[in-house]
Amino acid sequence: MSRPERRLNLLTGDWVLVSPQRVSRPWQGAASEAKPRDGLTHDPSCYLCAGVTRAGGVRNPDYEGVYVFDNDYPALLPGLTEAPAGDPLLVREPEAGLCRVICYSPDHSLTMAGMTPAQIETVVETWTAQFTELAARADIGAVTIFENRGEMMGASNPHPHGQVWAQQHVPNEQAREGDRQREGLAAHGETLLSAYLARELAAAERIVCANETFVALVPFWAAWPFEALVLPRRSVTGLDELTAPERAGLADILSRLTKAYDRLFEVSFPYTMGFHQRPTDGAAHPHVTLHAHFYPPLLRSASVRKFMVGYEMLAMPQRDLTPEEAAARLRDLT
Amino acid sequence: MSRPERRLNLLTGDWVLVSPQRVSRPWQGAASEAKPRDGLTHDPSCYLCAGVTRAGGVRNPDYEGVYVFDNDYPALLPGLTEAPAGDPLLVREPEAGLCRVICYSPDHSLTMAGMTPAQIETVVETWTAQFTELAARADIGAVTIFENRGEMMGASNPHPHGQVWAQQHVPNEQAREGDRQREGLAAHGETLLSAYLARELAAAERIVCANETFVALVPFWAAWPFEALVLPRRSVTGLDELTAPERAGLADILSRLTKAYDRLFEVSFPYTMGFHQRPTDGAAHPHVTLHAHFYPPLLRSASVRKFMVGYEMLAMPQRDLTPEEAAARLRDLT
Ligand SMILES: O=P(O)(O)O[C@H]1O[C@H](CO)[C@@H](O)[C@H](O)[C@H]1O
Ligand SMILES: O=P(O)(O)O[C@H]1O[C@H](CO)[C@@H](O)[C@H](O)[C@H]1O
Repeated sequence: MSRPERRLNLLTGDWVLVSPQRVSRPWQGAASEAKPRDGLTHDPSCYLCAGVTRAGGVRNPDYEGVYVFDNDYPALLPGLTEAPAGDPLLVREPEAGLCRVICYSPDHSLTMAGMTPAQIETVVETWTAQFTELAARADIGAVTIFENRGEMMGASNPHPHGQVWAQQHVPNEQAREGDRQREGLAAHGETLLSAYLARELAAAERIVCANETFVALVPFWAAWPFEALVLPRRSVTGLDELTAPERAGLADILSRLTKAYDRLFEVSFPYTMGFHQRPTDGAAHPHVTLHAHFYPPLLRSASVRKFMVGYEMLAMPQRDLTPEEAAARLRDLT
Repeated sequence: MSRPERRLNLLTGDWVLVSPQRVSRPWQGAASEAKPRDGLTHDPSCYLCAGVTRAGGVRNPDYEGVYVFDNDYPALLPGLTEAPAGDPLLVREPEAGLCRVICYSPDHSLTMAGMTPAQIETVVETWTAQFTELAARADIGAVTIFENRGEMMGASNPHPHGQVWAQQHVPNEQAREGDRQREGLAAHGETLLSAYLARELAAAERIVCANETFVALVPFWAAWPFEALVLPRRSVTGLDELTAPERAGLADILSRLTKAYDRLFEVSFPYTMGFHQRPTDGAAHPHVTLHAHFYPPLLRSASVRKFMVGYEMLAMPQRDLTPEEAAARLRDLT
């Protein structure tokens, strides 16, 4: 493929423009080097380190392993309230929920790529426990578990951590992906992502790494240069349906993928990653397949990133190198 | 309003989470100062300056006023081709089109905020001529006119310039906004954005500035901290339907809005801005109203920006200060 084409994102229904001929354009714009990590294992000025008193005044315990606490500056607050009578042009509704922080380890210097698969497994177990607990609540309809890694992706603190934002209503992305997956189950007689994964395993060219239970691939419709999708081989609707070997398999794939990312430009690779799971309204949602998205911004080096601006914000995402090239480069590094 | 709420974006159908209680959270993340401009009116290393030979080998003329040329590294290429037979899981289609660069002025040191309304009017006239020419072509179904201003918004060059990307198919954003506007015309008996503008003019609290023909406001559903929407008082479907006084009115509003932005944090304010207009397939599209979006990233100062990452990429946009606060601050600066 050497001419521009558009590809359909099966999960969102959006198109992405692929322009492989554009990869060599000159760059006189921002060069925002992903900062080298300082190697400090405990930073008394870091409000996620063990024993440190946070901005809100609470002192962190001397935790070992994974540590979860309520975000001191939550974007969501608990407490269901009635929606006011609606103006059809100015539509607003109260939104209830909560925000938690998940420290992956007391070791300030770590990243997911630097953790052992066994350490990552304890994070997977914590994500699972969080999802299970929140899914059981009557006031929570959706749970978003995610991680912003690196300054370039807006992480407000370099300590290895992720977040859980749980809320009353299903957010845009999950709603859109839910609709496409519902149509997909009806059309294919199996979940959309099972049917898609089978196609990808047969084609092989976009697979990054795989084990007996999970697969990491660069999706056919990837928008970010080295975007990845992590899929279970067995279609489950949430982390709470994974078996112990599947949790270990997920940890192994996360370890291999993040290590490959770090090797790509020899830098601690920035990204946003997170999970999409079934809405937690108590209904079954058999069309939904648990999956993780990785959205990393780097394009050509540690300092040249892809900006999703201008055309991307006003029209549609655009990428330069093909998903197949990106997958081949990552695969060689796993 | 002091509790989180979600608001509906009438144009896209998406929700945005508004969390006014979160504005004071601590920041240990990236501080990426919008670079001070160097004041150079001609930079021989800038490939948009008059008389400079560009990376592609072409020498720019000694232009005065506005100068348009074909992008040397276009993301779109002309030439319609047949779509291959489709795999329903790997959907791809050729996409034809073209990309042009519009230099607003030979003066390398300028920005829109530094231009006179009369100078901006010549840019409006160029945008109009571009839209008119491209809309008449049988191979072009949509025209996106936009500007990335500042390194933070991925501008690959500081010279005052914008772009036109024209393509065969209607991109995601225009398609989505078109659907909502079609429903809106049916529901309200006038265009969605006319009905919305009337409501905003009555409420007044989100208006930034207005003249006889155009209005700038912070939309009720703004996602970016100081996002703005520029609307014509008379609903037209494209720049080509504006009268001369309306073009002057648009230039005046663009001048006042960008000047207010620069005053906000006393820095040359970064943004992505661009126009949405009717698809150019030759049909009428009476439901579509021409408008411009401004998406500026700065949140609290010249160095602290809003990152649309993590939750925003995986779930839905989230903002801290309310649209009403943002509008009041900008209004005071116009
Ligand atoms: O065309 P430029 O200014 O080189 O590049 C900029 O705008 C383009 C269109 O929005 C984006 O695709 C690029 O990521 C961005 O850096
Ligand atoms: O929660 P943090 O790490 O302070 O903040 C980061 O993640 C949030 C959730 O994605 C975003 O809303 C913020 O813009 C981002 O800087």
